[in-house]
Amino acid sequence: MAKNITKKSENYSQWYNDIVLNADLAENSAVRGCMVIKPYGFAIWERLQAELDKMFKRTGHMNAYFPLFIPKSFFSKEANHVDGFAKECAVVTHYRLKNSEKGIVVDEEAKLEEELIVRPTSETIIWDTYKKWIQSYRDLPILVNQWANVVRWEMRTRLFLRTSEFLWQEGHTAHETKEEAIKETELILDIYANFLEKFMAVPVLKGRKTECERFAGALDTYCVEALMQDGKALQAGTSHFLGQNFSKAFDVKFSNREGKLEYVWSTSWGVSTRLMGALIMTHSDDQGLVLPPKLAPYQVVIVPIYKGRDDFEKVNKFCLNILKDLQDADIRVKYDDRDSHKPGWKFNEYEVKGVPVRLSIGKRDIEQNNVELFRRDTFDKKTVERNELIYSINKILNEIQENLFTRSSDFLNKNTFIVKNFDEFKDKINSGGFVLAHWDGTEETEMKIKKITKATIRCIPFESGESGTCVLSGKPSSKRVFFAKAY
Amino acid sequence: MAKNITKKSENYSQWYNDIVLNADLAENSAVRGCMVIKPYGFAIWERLQAELDKMFKRTGHMNAYFPLFIPKSFFSKEANHVDGFAKECAVVTHYRLKNSEKGIVVDEEAKLEEELIVRPTSETIIWDTYKKWIQSYRDLPILVNQWANVVRWEMRTRLFLRTSEFLWQEGHTAHETKEEAIKETELILDIYANFLEKFMAVPVLKGRKTECERFAGALDTYCVEALMQDGKALQAGTSHFLGQNFSKAFDVKFSNREGKLEYVWSTSWGVSTRLMGALIMTHSDDQGLVLPPKLAPYQVVIVPIYKGRDDFEKVNKFCLNILKDLQDADIRVKYDDRDSHKPGWKFNEYEVKGVPVRLSIGKRDIEQNNVELFRRDTFDKKTVERNELIYSINKILNEIQENLFTRSSDFLNKNTFIVKNFDEFKDKINSGGFVLAHWDGTEETEMKIKKITKATIRCIPFESGESGTCVLSGKPSSKRVFFAKAY
Repeated sequence: MAKNITKKSENYSQWYNDIVLNADLAENSAVRGCMVIKPYGFAIWERLQAELDKMFKRTGHMNAYFPLFIPKSFFSKEANHVDGFAKECAVVTHYRLKNSEKGIVVDEEAKLEEELIVRPTSETIIWDTYKKWIQSYRDLPILVNQWANVVRWEMRTRLFLRTSEFLWQEGHTAHETKEEAIKETELILDIYANFLEKFMAVPVLKGRKTECERFAGALDTYCVEALMQDGKALQAGTSHFLGQNFSKAFDVKFSNREGKLEYVWSTSWGVSTRLMGALIMTHSDDQGLVLPPKLAPYQVVIVPIYKGRDDFEKVNKFCLNILKDLQDADIRVKYDDRDSHKPGWKFNEYEVKGVPVRLSIGKRDIEQNNVELFRRDTFDKKTVERNELIYSINKILNEIQENLFTRSSDFLNKNTFIVKNFDEFKDKINSGGFVLAHWDGTEETEMKIKKITKATIRCIPFESGESGTCVLSGKPSSKRVFFAKAY
Repeated sequence: MAKNITKKSENYSQWYNDIVLNADLAENSAVRGCMVIKPYGFAIWERLQAELDKMFKRTGHMNAYFPLFIPKSFFSKEANHVDGFAKECAVVTHYRLKNSEKGIVVDEEAKLEEELIVRPTSETIIWDTYKKWIQSYRDLPILVNQWANVVRWEMRTRLFLRTSEFLWQEGHTAHETKEEAIKETELILDIYANFLEKFMAVPVLKGRKTECERFAGALDTYCVEALMQDGKALQAGTSHFLGQNFSKAFDVKFSNREGKLEYVWSTSWGVSTRLMGALIMTHSDDQGLVLPPKLAPYQVVIVPIYKGRDDFEKVNKFCLNILKDLQDADIRVKYDDRDSHKPGWKFNEYEVKGVPVRLSIGKRDIEQNNVELFRRDTFDKKTVERNELIYSINKILNEIQENLFTRSSDFLNKNTFIVKNFDEFKDKINSGGFVLAHWDGTEETEMKIKKITKATIRCIPFESGESGTCVLSGKPSSKRVFFAKAY
């Protein structure tokens, strides 16, 4: 069973890779740093997308699509922005190949006058567009989101967590006032937190980033941070208050309600296929992937058990009947009636793939009008009467969803530590988890701590807290902040 | 009214552009040849996507995601393929920018060893991947689709119809036998035809392409062809039988049921944002866009008519009540209660945007318990009792969907001509429409006709037909084929 999966306790990083590969989620491609998202992995991403998209639309956002390419000169318009992304840009320089003696080569006669950057994020091309859309306060707010691929050239990549190309959504909004833009930044952070907790069953900390961890071009970056099973933090989503930085860079003014010209206020925000990494590293175990029912492509799998043709026909009929009931009840279900694989093989397959509930159905079950039900999260088996099956399954799916969140919340709580001094700090950071510690608010201290311990400030809580003195410098601190080593 | 829209009869091409811009569907971006799909245009594309995606999934296909970049060497592996795409490839040569005295420049030290092509289509990267997925007949079929952006460098672009970057879906399937692959090619063509006719209300011709119109790398290309209002044809979708071309190029063999190694059989198929062009040029008129209800982001818009606060409160209450009824009945509806715009302005706005049904509601309507209902396709107005509103709207939405298809089918029929000789051929081709004519089956004749008339063979019908003699060469022909000038 699960023979291809390294034990977590042996090598967490290898375990992670084994899960991604064995559960058929993704794999490396022939293109350095770019992954292939396999059908089963993509089906989970589609579930994520669908639920997030609903939340965006319910709050008035619409989707749109902007160009993949960004003229190089656009980047230079916002100074911090170009500094942040210049080192990881894929650059298009030519628009044609040609046949030559050496084979197919780049046609040097087809060189672009201005190089194009494959978008690492779309603020610049979008604000160049918004300039055309915005004249008056009547054109505001603009609440637009884009689902897209982006490219940030990476030297060291890991499936889902850090890849040169990844999929994400990026929201870009434009507002009349600072207050409205900040409210939007907060609204989106709440959407992200809700989505992670309610759908992914991943508890998060909410807060703001320090200046040096901010998005390149933002005045303020809010974030949701999750804790992985190995005690490392993972930034799950960010929502940026951009102030008037991009409207100034692209000269986007509007006439306000008093008829005066003013620069537009803006936000941007995103989550990416990285969420797949958070999902895996929050719930899965040595047997394979564990999926929360709300995001599982199949919530239930039905495996028929039979010997020979006669048996199969009886069992098949019973199974098809159950299949229909489940479909009618809007439960996502797969019936695996392949005769090329044994039941034991299938059991293992769906455990590795994290299907929340498995039903196995043989002749004896039919005689007794029962179904055997297996829960992926607890490995519990239970016999359920056929008549009560739909009721039981719905109940168990809810229980699994809750159980996963309870387990991960307990883990987060048990691994969040308040420390009094730097020795305690180092000790706790080394053993893993979030460390709440006083910090003097300077970049200098932040960097020193990072250098000594590899821990970064994951977020500064929004709430006011107890004052004290910095764990490193001993200088005054108005409240504790969250430190951790991070992905 | 519609003052920014050129009349079709004056300049069809300008009319098309005016519709795209005035209905807020798309616009050109700062990046040559790349468009911005605006929220309203994208909402239509999302409806298209959702319905097609359901059809693919119902027939056993799953979505996945493959890299944006393709190593240059991969292209060369299939000779026809590289010939077909080499001249329009965007090429990534560097992976970093740097600061210099001249500003931000490409970092020459960050030159890629092998150039990467931004995918114009994904056969090569996908078949390199399938090689890892396929060992035995048990791994087949693979039925995978990808929704993605692709880039084909174009010198002359037109919004939706021909852009350097466009959005599409590309299916890539792998099969045990030739027969199964051909069956898949046919299945998908039927899905495309059904989708165009049932959802887009666009009637199509089905058939196969001639050898020189085939997809680069295919053994056979099936297509659906539609007729635009100006008498030009538009290729709406293609489904390719690739034989073993790509499995041979990427050496993908499987052990068949007899235990022998054999090359895999394959298909690929796609439709793109070009469909938006087909939708516009089939139904729209001088007043603006006309949308089939099944794909309209809003099927109904409610415009309140009032003077002053008291009026508004009464009208608003009545409207909100209707809004809720429509939402409960799963009708996509927008309530435009903005007080920044007059009713007349709104009427025009939603006519230009092609919303199928408009309800206008004032105080007198409330007193009489009536609603005024306007149909975009026929401009008919009708007063409906409040109690019968949902029933009437559902009925009218069905009628509009049918009416649009009937109108466009009539147009197609009236503009499809059988011709006997080349004079008639030239005459009919010049006035627009499909021309059914005998052809001797040679590329030479096909090219000559194209040179003289600009018409191409749009498709060869699947059905056998009457034999005769070629309109140009006088040589024998087994059946007539469809010619037209095309987009």
